[in-house]
Amino acid sequence: MIKIVGISLMLLGMTLSGQTQDDSIQFSKISAEILNHGKGYTELHDLTKNIGNRLSGSEAYEKSVQWAAQKLRDAGADKVWLQEVIIPVWERGKESLRIKTDTGKTKSLKMLSLGNSEGTGGKDVSGEIIMVKSLEEYDRLPAEKIKDKIIFFNHPFDQSPVQTFIAYRDAGAYRRTAAALTAKKGGKFAIIRSLSSGQDDVPHTGNMKYEDNLEKVPAICIGNTTADELEQLLKTQKVIATLNSNCGMKGEKLSHSVIGEITGKKDKDVIVVGGHLDSWDVGEGAHDDGAGIVQSIEVLRTFKKLGIQNNHTIRAVCFANEENGTKGGKQYGKTAKETHEKHIFAIESDAGGFSPRGISLEMDDEKRKQIQSWIKLFLPYGIYNFEGKYSGSDIAPLHEMGVPTAELVPDPQRYFDIHHTEEDTFEKVNRRELLLGSAVMTQLIYMIDKNW
Amino acid sequence: MIKIVGISLMLLGMTLSGQTQDDSIQFSKISAEILNHGKGYTELHDLTKNIGNRLSGSEAYEKSVQWAAQKLRDAGADKVWLQEVIIPVWERGKESLRIKTDTGKTKSLKMLSLGNSEGTGGKDVSGEIIMVKSLEEYDRLPAEKIKDKIIFFNHPFDQSPVQTFIAYRDAGAYRRTAAALTAKKGGKFAIIRSLSSGQDDVPHTGNMKYEDNLEKVPAICIGNTTADELEQLLKTQKVIATLNSNCGMKGEKLSHSVIGEITGKKDKDVIVVGGHLDSWDVGEGAHDDGAGIVQSIEVLRTFKKLGIQNNHTIRAVCFANEENGTKGGKQYGKTAKETHEKHIFAIESDAGGFSPRGISLEMDDEKRKQIQSWIKLFLPYGIYNFEGKYSGSDIAPLHEMGVPTAELVPDPQRYFDIHHTEEDTFEKVNRRELLLGSAVMTQLIYMIDKNW
Repeated sequence: MIKIVGISLMLLGMTLSGQTQDDSIQFSKISAEILNHGKGYTELHDLTKNIGNRLSGSEAYEKSVQWAAQKLRDAGADKVWLQEVIIPVWERGKESLRIKTDTGKTKSLKMLSLGNSEGTGGKDVSGEIIMVKSLEEYDRLPAEKIKDKIIFFNHPFDQSPVQTFIAYRDAGAYRRTAAALTAKKGGKFAIIRSLSSGQDDVPHTGNMKYEDNLEKVPAICIGNTTADELEQLLKTQKVIATLNSNCGMKGEKLSHSVIGEITGKKDKDVIVVGGHLDSWDVGEGAHDDGAGIVQSIEVLRTFKKLGIQNNHTIRAVCFANEENGTKGGKQYGKTAKETHEKHIFAIESDAGGFSPRGISLEMDDEKRKQIQSWIKLFLPYGIYNFEGKYSGSDIAPLHEMGVPTAELVPDPQRYFDIHHTEEDTFEKVNRRELLLGSAVMTQLIYMIDKNW
Repeated sequence: MIKIVGISLMLLGMTLSGQTQDDSIQFSKISAEILNHGKGYTELHDLTKNIGNRLSGSEAYEKSVQWAAQKLRDAGADKVWLQEVIIPVWERGKESLRIKTDTGKTKSLKMLSLGNSEGTGGKDVSGEIIMVKSLEEYDRLPAEKIKDKIIFFNHPFDQSPVQTFIAYRDAGAYRRTAAALTAKKGGKFAIIRSLSSGQDDVPHTGNMKYEDNLEKVPAICIGNTTADELEQLLKTQKVIATLNSNCGMKGEKLSHSVIGEITGKKDKDVIVVGGHLDSWDVGEGAHDDGAGIVQSIEVLRTFKKLGIQNNHTIRAVCFANEENGTKGGKQYGKTAKETHEKHIFAIESDAGGFSPRGISLEMDDEKRKQIQSWIKLFLPYGIYNFEGKYSGSDIAPLHEMGVPTAELVPDPQRYFDIHHTEEDTFEKVNRRELLLGSAVMTQLIYMIDKNW
């Protein structure tokens, strides 16, 4: 192990001494333990294959709560508990989209309703499709052109940015607002081109939002090749779309986030590492965010296994309901405030279980610079990018309370091929890539626990 | 595009000015062109699905020669030609491995002969299996213990190194030398545990070497789970293995490397970008090295498409016979020497079509430092590691002639799950990851063409 770190650092033209060398040895032990004996990959197989996707409110989600509690106990957590969270319940139900052209041809299109979208109450709702390529183009259309129509927001996912989250953020506006924009001008429902970097016909669901005082019209998505075909068709024909969907919100329910911790040896101040336990209701929620869950549990397991004496309490949080409400993260922040529990740091893994490349830091400059000064230790593990200034949605409430927060930054090239789809399965996760993410979070928490 | 580069560089806390800013804009154009309109992924699909694996000497290899020449013409090469190469011809033929235990149980094991291994001439060859875990352990065994036995070199692939090539190099000694070591002490044939980071039963073939004056005994490999099972079995039982294999060298043959170039506007000095066109005879040779081939062709296409005026001749070389002889690379070097054709730089992509992370530089310190000084330009594309000091085997002959050489360094976590196996298929390649590799090589060649 030491030899390997030696080689890597030599390659990087760096030398370490004293304390840094001790830390380097600890980093190496952490990485070797996880790459050789990590449980995360096997646990992810279990979660995805024996439970599968686990939307908030579903029976599968409740099973995953029990599963996560057991895995935290297996990891050696000193204390494991469930935190009550009131979550919204959305159900997809049966749904279909058909089109009919001028020439009388009909076709059934592969689609998914967007998450939290209302349906048609099981009735057929039809109208002519009007296509727009951008929000600006839609804004220019007068309401009379939209009235009773179906709006096809055909905004392509931008392949140019190397950081795919830039394209996702850009296209995200369509997913979020298509229904409200359609309702505002009297349209019947909205179709969006999926937020997808793939060249396939896989629809990508995801959260959408209604606006108060506007009709809750359905919003659905189609895959890239269906969108391409529809675009071609609309160049020469009038196309009537018919949606029949039983989707809808079904009130609220009591559910839980799952928490496990190893007690601090010096004090009870808390360091959080987490991901979200829920997923969308398609695929297996493997990268999003089964990966973050098993990585967070692995952090606790590794501290225990290596017998690292943690000064502060290290807590793995499996947040409920990130996808369609972030109620788990909100409740966690609320409880922390109410109990005056001091949190010194929180990190989230919710960008897929791909090879880690960096850590995004949302904190004051002093702390930020301190972490950046550890780059020599991290470089042998492929971690070079500490430049991001954001962190995850589940720990945003902690950040608002002044807690320094961070997010693991994995390689972003493959994520939006499979994000929120039937393709987000265990088979898309690589063992070593997943485990390296756990190693890096463990290393960072080791440093913060020791130095803060 | 410019905006995106702006964001990335801002995130990296850097500012550019003057010439560097112009280069940054060119980098952005190159990347956007390739990520949006790159042909490499579609071409790789064509190569892998319509031709498939393409071992030197096979009909498929000859088809791929014609295919590559056409793709180079499609890319806009000013000149395309075939370079004659005399290659060794190795054929696998039918092969099987059975075991029989003390208790009389028999089982057929999944296996592959190593590349270039001789077989048993279609006859059954049997013997008791002796297992060793390391070369040192084998060295300690007296010849009488090995005589007429089957040696199972059960050296595990080390999961600890983040740089998986370290583990590959370490385990590589077993693949290369197992047959000769076995022959030296009178053993009948060698079985090795595959050089594999996967947790599966996939055997990984690859090149092996005989020594002069020693019997050419067969060498075969088995997958990790079969190796685990055999190891367990040997703890309590005597196991007899029977190999029947028709593998063997079938002499030599005339074949070709494929070369295409765009002529230099200032001089005829050459910059080479390449990969190898041949593959092993299992799977589809997608990552190894269909990826390097389509990436290299993409470099030419992009120069042409963007109308970049290249000072020097830029040449894409699809080398023949890398896997079991490197005769293509050797011939290319020999010809360059004979024709006194000046090469100013060569880069190879032969480590898989994964997200690029760096460029390894095998050259004098001055040139090395110059390239390293361009890091600001490369960082937005995820390229941070310029520390390696090696380059690929096909351009080694150029390097020996004093040419500065380099290799694209992709993320190494997934490579040795699928390297030299039936699992190295198109489906394992991600479009954006593959294309980013082409973009980075194009950017580097743009800089070298301009500055050298």
